[in-house]
Amino acid sequence: MTTPTELYETHRELLDRAIAAAGTRAYWSAYPESPSKSVYGEDAAPAGERAFRALLGTDFPVDLPGATGTVATERSPYGFDLGVRYPRADPAALVAAARAATPAWRAVGPRGRAGVAAEILRRINARSFEIAHAVQHTTGQAFVMAFQAGGTHAQDRGLEAVAYALAATTRMPATASWSKPQRGGDALTMTKTSTVVGRGVALVIGCNTFPTWNGYPGLFASLVTGNPVIVKPHPSAVLPLALTVLIAREVLTEAGQDPNLVTLAVEEPGDGIAVTLATHPAVRIIDFTGSSEFGNWLEANARQAVVYTEKAGLNTVVVDSTDDYTGLLRNLSFSLSLYSGQMCTTPQNILVPSDGIETDAGRRTPDAFAADLAGAVDKLLADPKRAAGTLGAIVNDEVLSRVTEASGAPGVVRRTAEVADEQWPEAVIRTPAIVRLDAADEKVYTREWFGPVSFVIATESTRHSLELFVETVRDHGALTASVYSTSPRVVAAAREAALDAGVHLSENLTGGVFVNQTAAFSDLHGTAANPAATASLSDDWFVTGRFCTLQSRHHD
Amino acid sequence: MTTPTELYETHRELLDRAIAAAGTRAYWSAYPESPSKSVYGEDAAPAGERAFRALLGTDFPVDLPGATGTVATERSPYGFDLGVRYPRADPAALVAAARAATPAWRAVGPRGRAGVAAEILRRINARSFEIAHAVQHTTGQAFVMAFQAGGTHAQDRGLEAVAYALAATTRMPATASWSKPQRGGDALTMTKTSTVVGRGVALVIGCNTFPTWNGYPGLFASLVTGNPVIVKPHPSAVLPLALTVLIAREVLTEAGQDPNLVTLAVEEPGDGIAVTLATHPAVRIIDFTGSSEFGNWLEANARQAVVYTEKAGLNTVVVDSTDDYTGLLRNLSFSLSLYSGQMCTTPQNILVPSDGIETDAGRRTPDAFAADLAGAVDKLLADPKRAAGTLGAIVNDEVLSRVTEASGAPGVVRRTAEVADEQWPEAVIRTPAIVRLDAADEKVYTREWFGPVSFVIATESTRHSLELFVETVRDHGALTASVYSTSPRVVAAAREAALDAGVHLSENLTGGVFVNQTAAFSDLHGTAANPAATASLSDDWFVTGRFCTLQSRHHD
Repeated sequence: MTTPTELYETHRELLDRAIAAAGTRAYWSAYPESPSKSVYGEDAAPAGERAFRALLGTDFPVDLPGATGTVATERSPYGFDLGVRYPRADPAALVAAARAATPAWRAVGPRGRAGVAAEILRRINARSFEIAHAVQHTTGQAFVMAFQAGGTHAQDRGLEAVAYALAATTRMPATASWSKPQRGGDALTMTKTSTVVGRGVALVIGCNTFPTWNGYPGLFASLVTGNPVIVKPHPSAVLPLALTVLIAREVLTEAGQDPNLVTLAVEEPGDGIAVTLATHPAVRIIDFTGSSEFGNWLEANARQAVVYTEKAGLNTVVVDSTDDYTGLLRNLSFSLSLYSGQMCTTPQNILVPSDGIETDAGRRTPDAFAADLAGAVDKLLADPKRAAGTLGAIVNDEVLSRVTEASGAPGVVRRTAEVADEQWPEAVIRTPAIVRLDAADEKVYTREWFGPVSFVIATESTRHSLELFVETVRDHGALTASVYSTSPRVVAAAREAALDAGVHLSENLTGGVFVNQTAAFSDLHGTAANPAATASLSDDWFVTGRFCTLQSRHHD
Repeated sequence: MTTPTELYETHRELLDRAIAAAGTRAYWSAYPESPSKSVYGEDAAPAGERAFRALLGTDFPVDLPGATGTVATERSPYGFDLGVRYPRADPAALVAAARAATPAWRAVGPRGRAGVAAEILRRINARSFEIAHAVQHTTGQAFVMAFQAGGTHAQDRGLEAVAYALAATTRMPATASWSKPQRGGDALTMTKTSTVVGRGVALVIGCNTFPTWNGYPGLFASLVTGNPVIVKPHPSAVLPLALTVLIAREVLTEAGQDPNLVTLAVEEPGDGIAVTLATHPAVRIIDFTGSSEFGNWLEANARQAVVYTEKAGLNTVVVDSTDDYTGLLRNLSFSLSLYSGQMCTTPQNILVPSDGIETDAGRRTPDAFAADLAGAVDKLLADPKRAAGTLGAIVNDEVLSRVTEASGAPGVVRRTAEVADEQWPEAVIRTPAIVRLDAADEKVYTREWFGPVSFVIATESTRHSLELFVETVRDHGALTASVYSTSPRVVAAAREAALDAGVHLSENLTGGVFVNQTAAFSDLHGTAANPAATASLSDDWFVTGRFCTLQSRHHD
């Protein structure tokens, strides 16, 4: 057995660095994003693939309280059934087991809990290739993206949450001496203790597209702040989180803790256990990523819990002018294409003044801009192999039907097209659709078209674009926004507009940073300032609702 | 004009000390609690009283947007009408004015806002005598208590909230440089800015008994995190908060800000503006102190806002044994008597094992203990002048009717009695009632009897007392708890029980610290871990929901 305290000592330097990095917001990463042999070793890639393949068609090796029978619900967007059978969850048994495990976990204290979390992340990182295959074949992400976004970047986001949780739970000293001077007498003196107490059972509801990246922050934040966690994956993306839970339980057991501090809740579609769990009186924390419909339902109905949601929105690009038109088109076309736009951060509404934008290639009207953007997408995806590596596969039929609908819409300037993947001939791969709209078409562009669908929308002026940006994001939310302008005045106005709209802003991205990507320890992801989310990954607000500090005091 | 930045520089040392004090939890106070001439000057006391008297029967000198006519609703529990006429509020106009004032306040930034807040507190402190009279004659607190709890201690709690808000809003740097190494190429570099944005219009709903002490933390936390604040006092305790708002508006104006960042919402009883304001879509933060009924209503219905409530509960004392029985009785009798038990922190349920407790005065059964406690109260209040100074006046008829009801209950061991105050012959002053109950009488003791009513409840054993303590506090909440025991094992069990119940614990108080009093910068007041409150005064959770951090990023 390695105690939580020993694990804290083992990972102390890493945890200190993570807290420091989150404090400076400078570049830092704990887990190398390159899936190369020089980093992860000669055998890591094939061993990871073997481990993944060995799981297919088998009973997933996890013992959970109250499970009845098994469930297998996953089919790879690359064209085969995973056939992994998971225990079918009994929500009441999971909650009871979680509660029973809590007191000993409370007694471990923040540092020991952070040590356990860091060890879990170390072992997750060591299995990055295996998990990358699991992410690829549940989300449709291409392999390298699955390794990075589903593997190492998710691990960084997990460690960031550990860092915030550890910092927030150790900011108040565990023991304090208090001495109040008294007139004409001895001082009143007391010793005061502060103990961090978790809020209660935590529930993580995973999404189909980013099960780990969006799941780890809540999982680790709740765990480190003293709460047991029930992980309820999307039925189509169980395996990446099941592996995570397996690793967590292994580390907890070795650390002398009850493995039921982290459990897995898998359902037969229709069991409705997310609702059962989310409204259970003992479930006091919920992290959810997914549709606005269910997210809003949770916020309205899971009243006994603190609810962190990340939902849908209208990610917006305000185009005013540029001195690097080629760079703009290259950067934006990549953002539209990456993982077929199946990211909550992919731009949807691209606002262009009707009298056109000034560029180093001359003035471009909305029509010309839309055509140029379509051309840039064509160019980016011209090589089928590169296209497949960028696009990944379409995750489900809803996305397919939206991109098909958009391709038949009036004003379409780029229709979606099929791409063949040599390695996965049965994968459903589609290129982005781009539609030209006017500002008056708000019925179309004020709903989220999740997937590879974007709109080039003509506005009266850049001022009008900024107004439309603020109005639509205030009303419907957004996770990202960007502006292109050579005018410092317009950039300043865009910053104010982004503050008014309540969304983070990227300015003049023409190089290797994309609006749909954020870096842990530096970029916040999401914000509670607009309807698309109720928190950021990660900051103090994301962790402080997960625990209370309770004091005792006595005279010395 | 003194700019916010200049005010920050003026108060920087104070703010730094406040943040440091909250970090160490050692004793610290910014505002001297002694109303003596040596501290506040020869003329401060009479000048303060003159200033208070000059307000009686006049139009309160504040100009507010949209006000229609005036309202005068206050009567001193010491027996006279205040007759101060306040502008009758138009909720929509106050919200509109608050919103209009917000952008310039956002631009000030956290440090300037904290500087403005510290200056407001400095001027409030300078008017402590005037405000003490206002507190005395709206709450019924005796003068010295009004000066301390309603004056300097409230100011300390206000400054503590400023410190937490300032620390939380400056933890992330305003500007960061990010540089990510690239294989075989230049690093990707970006400059990133972080801006604190308030959540929206804040509403502070004051209570009758502690308008300033319970009002200041939310007021200052919201203001410093970038939000305009509408202060809605209890109709019976307007003046202390009206003076506070007046001072805040004066400082804001001098600092070049819109005074409508802090406004006063006074109503004719029955106007129902608390509900109107609390459910206004632009009101995004609510701080409430008062009844569980309205607090629970706010939590359920003010869905657009972050809601911080402090409600009612069952403050509990577990008595197991003591080696200072006299000290125990003296300490506890004072806690029951101070301000006639009209504190949300006054002990109500005193649990004593039926076979008695070991003391240095021999074993005492519940009956004997109850009689001894009644005797200690008699002794404490034997001198009418001292009694009046301890008890203050009964704040309203509901309290009077509860203490009258308790005095007629079966099992009463101490009936309430009238006390005459020479200076205020018309004041309604009553001593505490004590009733002997058994554990089976839970219908009586599981509701809050706010005021001078306490129960000595016989349990099967100390173990049973601890179980009852956990069950009743988990179900009904509590703001305080204490234990008396000479056994380290019992004290340890009481600590665990307090963690399970979710309440702060005082141990073996027999001297000059009382369970119903907490010290700013050291003791947390309240906790979100039981139903009596949704937050503590003050910690990070209390401030982090009041703002978002929004980023912008661009390549260098």
